[in-house]
Amino acid sequence: MYTLSANQYGKGEIHLVRIYRDTPRHEIRDLTVTTALRGDFADAYLSGDQSKVLPTDTQKNTAFAFAKTHGEGAVEDYAIALGRHFVDSDPYATAADIDVLVDAWDRVVIDGAEHDHTWVKRGPERRTVRVVATGTGAEQTVEVTGGVVDLVILKSTGSEFHGFHKDEYTTLGETDDRILATSLDVTWRFSAVPADWDAAFVTIRTALVSTFATWHSLALQQTLWQMGQAALDAVPEIAEVKLTAPNKHHFLYDFTRFTVAQPIPNDNEVFHADDRPYGLIEATVSRA
Amino acid sequence: MYTLSANQYGKGEIHLVRIYRDTPRHEIRDLTVTTALRGDFADAYLSGDQSKVLPTDTQKNTAFAFAKTHGEGAVEDYAIALGRHFVDSDPYATAADIDVLVDAWDRVVIDGAEHDHTWVKRGPERRTVRVVATGTGAEQTVEVTGGVVDLVILKSTGSEFHGFHKDEYTTLGETDDRILATSLDVTWRFSAVPADWDAAFVTIRTALVSTFATWHSLALQQTLWQMGQAALDAVPEIAEVKLTAPNKHHFLYDFTRFTVAQPIPNDNEVFHADDRPYGLIEATVSRA
Amino acid sequence: MYTLSANQYGKGEIHLVRIYRDTPRHEIRDLTVTTALRGDFADAYLSGDQSKVLPTDTQKNTAFAFAKTHGEGAVEDYAIALGRHFVDSDPYATAADIDVLVDAWDRVVIDGAEHDHTWVKRGPERRTVRVVATGTGAEQTVEVTGGVVDLVILKSTGSEFHGFHKDEYTTLGETDDRILATSLDVTWRFSAVPADWDAAFVTIRTALVSTFATWHSLALQQTLWQMGQAALDAVPEIAEVKLTAPNKHHFLYDFTRFTVAQPIPNDNEVFHADDRPYGLIEATVSRA
Amino acid sequence: MYTLSANQYGKGEIHLVRIYRDTPRHEIRDLTVTTALRGDFADAYLSGDQSKVLPTDTQKNTAFAFAKTHGEGAVEDYAIALGRHFVDSDPYATAADIDVLVDAWDRVVIDGAEHDHTWVKRGPERRTVRVVATGTGAEQTVEVTGGVVDLVILKSTGSEFHGFHKDEYTTLGETDDRILATSLDVTWRFSAVPADWDAAFVTIRTALVSTFATWHSLALQQTLWQMGQAALDAVPEIAEVKLTAPNKHHFLYDFTRFTVAQPIPNDNEVFHADDRPYGLIEATVSRA
Repeated sequence: MYTLSANQYGKGEIHLVRIYRDTPRHEIRDLTVTTALRGDFADAYLSGDQSKVLPTDTQKNTAFAFAKTHGEGAVEDYAIALGRHFVDSDPYATAADIDVLVDAWDRVVIDGAEHDHTWVKRGPERRTVRVVATGTGAEQTVEVTGGVVDLVILKSTGSEFHGFHKDEYTTLGETDDRILATSLDVTWRFSAVPADWDAAFVTIRTALVSTFATWHSLALQQTLWQMGQAALDAVPEIAEVKLTAPNKHHFLYDFTRFTVAQPIPNDNEVFHADDRPYGLIEATVSRA
Repeated sequence: MYTLSANQYGKGEIHLVRIYRDTPRHEIRDLTVTTALRGDFADAYLSGDQSKVLPTDTQKNTAFAFAKTHGEGAVEDYAIALGRHFVDSDPYATAADIDVLVDAWDRVVIDGAEHDHTWVKRGPERRTVRVVATGTGAEQTVEVTGGVVDLVILKSTGSEFHGFHKDEYTTLGETDDRILATSLDVTWRFSAVPADWDAAFVTIRTALVSTFATWHSLALQQTLWQMGQAALDAVPEIAEVKLTAPNKHHFLYDFTRFTVAQPIPNDNEVFHADDRPYGLIEATVSRA
Repeated sequence: MYTLSANQYGKGEIHLVRIYRDTPRHEIRDLTVTTALRGDFADAYLSGDQSKVLPTDTQKNTAFAFAKTHGEGAVEDYAIALGRHFVDSDPYATAADIDVLVDAWDRVVIDGAEHDHTWVKRGPERRTVRVVATGTGAEQTVEVTGGVVDLVILKSTGSEFHGFHKDEYTTLGETDDRILATSLDVTWRFSAVPADWDAAFVTIRTALVSTFATWHSLALQQTLWQMGQAALDAVPEIAEVKLTAPNKHHFLYDFTRFTVAQPIPNDNEVFHADDRPYGLIEATVSRA
Repeated sequence: MYTLSANQYGKGEIHLVRIYRDTPRHEIRDLTVTTALRGDFADAYLSGDQSKVLPTDTQKNTAFAFAKTHGEGAVEDYAIALGRHFVDSDPYATAADIDVLVDAWDRVVIDGAEHDHTWVKRGPERRTVRVVATGTGAEQTVEVTGGVVDLVILKSTGSEFHGFHKDEYTTLGETDDRILATSLDVTWRFSAVPADWDAAFVTIRTALVSTFATWHSLALQQTLWQMGQAALDAVPEIAEVKLTAPNKHHFLYDFTRFTVAQPIPNDNEVFHADDRPYGLIEATVSRA
């Protein structure tokens, strides 16, 4: 009478820190890992039979262990190894998702020299990695998606917004000079393995940020389209870029209402940064 | 060379409060509305031409206006009216999404009597409504999804977990009596319009909560499957229930390590409620 | 050359859940406990000598243990026992602070009957308890402060704001009917032990909420003054009430700007609930 | 019968962004300002008479206006001007508090060159400024406090913890090599005006961070004491440093429990970063 359709289970937000300390100059990697398995798990739902269910606690343990045993390459290499492990070694899992949020730490600089083992956390921006491993043996596929979340970026000029469609509820004024600010969440799907995962990330991020800065914007939509193209131009191994961009509004403050003796000018200088609501623009740019 | 694929735009998190004050006994409705339009909007991306773009500011204005002009029925009626308005009146929009989060307010009770115009906010649980209106005229379809987020529920017994699959990374002990706690996000898709949207919500929520309480659980998976079935049983107008449930771990605190003169027993009485990581179970239950 | 002045150390946000299960009808208590010790701890700062420092990990262990061994009375009794324990048993501590946040859980009701062992979490409001134990033996003093945080309350009428002082930056309009909403943080200091800690909490909370509802407000300041007096009237064992109240602004939405054929009235019906900034009023009311 | 004791009112979290655009190379300042006034405001409480109350809305307007009219110097200069304005111009205010949180933005770099008008937000760390202006004319005093919040810092070695006091609840093991991590909130009170507010901030922050990195720690307490002294050494115009430091625990993950064929070593390499609870150390260091 009823059907169990899409289902999966795993461990959310395993927060692990890996220190590399083979030399006095340590390295740090700060990962928040979420795992999910799909497969032959219907019995757990239908009858409560757990005999095919690898506990989420075990998935957590494995994520920690692999940080040591498979932690020498890029975060993508770690996530691929972990995803493959689950589908290869668990007879009941047919697919594994590995999602990773990477926190950035800046090495402390003292008298111009980088310190060996001390860092300050930098945010809010975080790099993301998503791996979906499906099937085993010759049939196995591994899909890798890179990305960045909470990349908050603002330009104080070089942005217009006018000529829009109006109806009876439209009250917005037109402008040829405004602040454009957003908090970008971007993901990019790899169709091939790049020579260097970390270099690919840096190259794509640079393309996104540079385009946001230099493209004279007639709309956030237009800027996103340009950013997506720039990323695809920069790294041939990615097939598609998906951008989600809240338009974080900065409203020019109206000083003309004050009864001060000397009028206070506000030539795009003082703005109220509003929290909510915000515009929300989403677009996907692909190779044709 | 590049293609603009999936894209949409709208206004996020419009926080509006509607007071009904036709009689001395006021009513309150507290909504956080997000709108999104899809349609003939490629020019905004490709050339920055905004002539087909109804500003997100206008979408916000309309959401507020409709709270007055179309606010007499249920929240679902309001969202349907708003979604239809966008696809009906905007010549370039082919689909509109309206997402609503509903905050709950409890009327203040003084000396046993409900106060006419004062409320205390109740959370964290919030009711959700999602409407997708597509097309115009005879072709128009409207899909309505109800739901609840952040429904945090806990049972202190009646939950086991054992007999699971083990590998070399498995260290978890088995238990036949544990705390089961989760923070439910559930959505249900309507295939027909119920007689009363509010009654349908209450009936489904009751089915979910009652089943969680009374079903003796061999796994959170099993409990979710039972909850989904109970919801489908309770309201024939829904076709599918999707459940997302973090397993919020409560670890029995180990008192045996202490060197107190008198051993302190802990027979499932004192637990550490851990934040992260958490199990994460997702399932969809449908009519066959 | 330099002096170590005020200093303390402890454990922050110990999240413990206590289940009372002596009968089939269980009870739940959900506490987030923070401890802090002050005393003869300068050596830990000046030379790194830890020999007088009871680890914060031990303070945590003790908080869990006392949930079992001293958990039969009110939360205040538990916090007093824990605070006294630290100053009585630790030869180096001269004062202990115990801060507790109490999360509320509502028992699930099925077919009109309360369920024995299942609850739904209710928030955002939380009860607070603060105990400061100082000295030992006959010199020992214990100060107890009760309170509530995040009590979000709103009245849709019965609130005015006019006749205020104006200067050259003043643009605010006057109103004789507005929404008054706040998120109360209130603490009250006990000068004597009440017959029943839980009853005292309920009585004070009722006094606060009822006064907010029924007092016709000329300003949030005036409402707070009335609320403080009502609390002092209600429970003679408290000496002082401290209230912190953000004025959560609800702005009437301006529909006159629309060019709709039929003007849309807005007679205090549709409001924009703004996040930031907010007014912030603080006051302490004491017995003379 | 009852007394109104400590009271104040103001505006919380005014989020203003100031762009300096006199040349093509713009500058940005991102401030979240909270104001509070104290003075002859009892009538607002006792009778609801607002005639002496400058609305919090006016305080907000003034904060925005002063960002233009008094925004040329350091943030401290702006806050001092704003605080003085309220006590000088409002006949009923006897003291004004101005609290400012400063968000940091990094200029975008393209092909090695800094962009003129685009920035990426950097956090979570924020600089703070607090000004308390009291009295008028020759009696006026202005107290300035600088600071930093959410400075998250971690060292992967050079930290021990052993030799601590133990009781019957102590289970913690001793260690001579651990991760030391904290999220610092530090404030420093100025006893004189430094030559350059911004330089003073940089100097103090450098002293704090360098000391955390280079001091071999026997306890977080000891590290804080050294940091406070270093700040006082670095800038003679500050009289006192107050430090609040959660000990953010990183637990070495135990791989010995696994039944893997090849044991997995964990020589201070893989850690679980736990959220709660955390140690919490607070200390004030002053000139003698």
